[in-house]
Amino acid sequence: MRILIANDDGIDAQGINILALQLATKYDILVVAPDRNRSGASNSLTLTRPLQPTKISDNHYRVDGTPTDCVNLALSGVIAGHVDMVVSGINHGANLGDDVIYSGTVAAAMEARHLGRPALAVSLVGSIHFETAAKVILQLIQDSPSLVIAPGVLLNINVPDVPYESLKGIKVTRLGYRHRAQEAISAQHPKGLPSFWIGALSKPYDASPGTDFHAVDEGYVSITPIHTDMTSHEAKKPLEDWVVSLTL
Amino acid sequence: MRILIANDDGIDAQGINILALQLATKYDILVVAPDRNRSGASNSLTLTRPLQPTKISDNHYRVDGTPTDCVNLALSGVIAGHVDMVVSGINHGANLGDDVIYSGTVAAAMEARHLGRPALAVSLVGSIHFETAAKVILQLIQDSPSLVIAPGVLLNINVPDVPYESLKGIKVTRLGYRHRAQEAISAQHPKGLPSFWIGALSKPYDASPGTDFHAVDEGYVSITPIHTDMTSHEAKKPLEDWVVSLTL
Repeated sequence: MRILIANDDGIDAQGINILALQLATKYDILVVAPDRNRSGASNSLTLTRPLQPTKISDNHYRVDGTPTDCVNLALSGVIAGHVDMVVSGINHGANLGDDVIYSGTVAAAMEARHLGRPALAVSLVGSIHFETAAKVILQLIQDSPSLVIAPGVLLNINVPDVPYESLKGIKVTRLGYRHRAQEAISAQHPKGLPSFWIGALSKPYDASPGTDFHAVDEGYVSITPIHTDMTSHEAKKPLEDWVVSLTL
Repeated sequence: MRILIANDDGIDAQGINILALQLATKYDILVVAPDRNRSGASNSLTLTRPLQPTKISDNHYRVDGTPTDCVNLALSGVIAGHVDMVVSGINHGANLGDDVIYSGTVAAAMEARHLGRPALAVSLVGSIHFETAAKVILQLIQDSPSLVIAPGVLLNINVPDVPYESLKGIKVTRLGYRHRAQEAISAQHPKGLPSFWIGALSKPYDASPGTDFHAVDEGYVSITPIHTDMTSHEAKKPLEDWVVSLTL
């Protein structure tokens, strides 16, 4: 089995390199990742210019684009052959709750699922124990032949930042919610022009039992199934009732 | 009522300007849009540098960032005051089916919903009759006080590219699916380096009755409710059955 590894922190990040070393002990790997940090890239695609994949060593390529670009090109076969499964990460920091819509790590896995491959996104809730997350992912992949998962569903995995032996287990979760993000922060511009940083994330609003926030807080690996179909089927009925009352 | 208008085609695009003119006949408007075409930007946020909103005329600002950046800053209140509702568009071209995950237009509306505002994304299935889409949106907004929609749900609206009088009506739809996107296309690089364009979209795979593809093909305005919670609740059970069999 050949596994494509991508990320959003860039090809030089510690997380992706520890993951690649771990998975290479059991599988063929192909690493295709952005040439720089593209955190917050979401599912963005580069559509206004061509992309240049550059080989940096055997089965390692950097791309001057987004995480989604990397997976799209690699699964197009234009970089280096066939891929059976895709793992995105290990992200430096959590991807929990409604943050996932901004995540380049989750987006890379979503692109893989879109293109018909099983896909995992993996994030470390911290910045120290990347080895823990890498071992968990290797184990999940080794057990994955017995997992039946619907087309259009990918797994978003968050691993507590603790030694492997300290993990409490694995919990299947739903995404929690955060409070609205904090407001933009004024930046000092050298010419005094209005200039702002996007505000930081807020604390969780719903971190109750069953959520991804709760699982990692309790020391469990959180696995949330994520679907790529964004239709809100629950909202169709009230909307239909409203539309009936309208005339163009 | 004050309406924020954003888009992903950039502040100079015909679609956003026709929409702004139409909505300004009935409401206070604020236009905050990217300084260039950011199609395909998805929910990406600019996190590595500050952003500079530039006033170009009363209630019109351009931002050197993504569609999501524009909405985030505008709703942060750092640009120009209070906003009650957000409309993103009019996009040049459709946003149908699974394409929506890449769409900057839909992402701008999703950011608005995340930040607690009612939000519409509107796209013209073509490039001619922007006036048709603008009239439809004005009418929907005028009727919106009678619409009860869940938090976390936004409306993705696609309007056929025909004169207003030729519209057949409005249909509430689900997202359809396309076949996998076409493969990357080799680009001629001046120095002969490997260089590729991301491949184009493929034809629809599921455009059956009930989908957004089908509605616009039949001449109807398509309204799809989109949710921002990406948890696949259906996939939790099989995943739980699998996790039980694992030991860390």
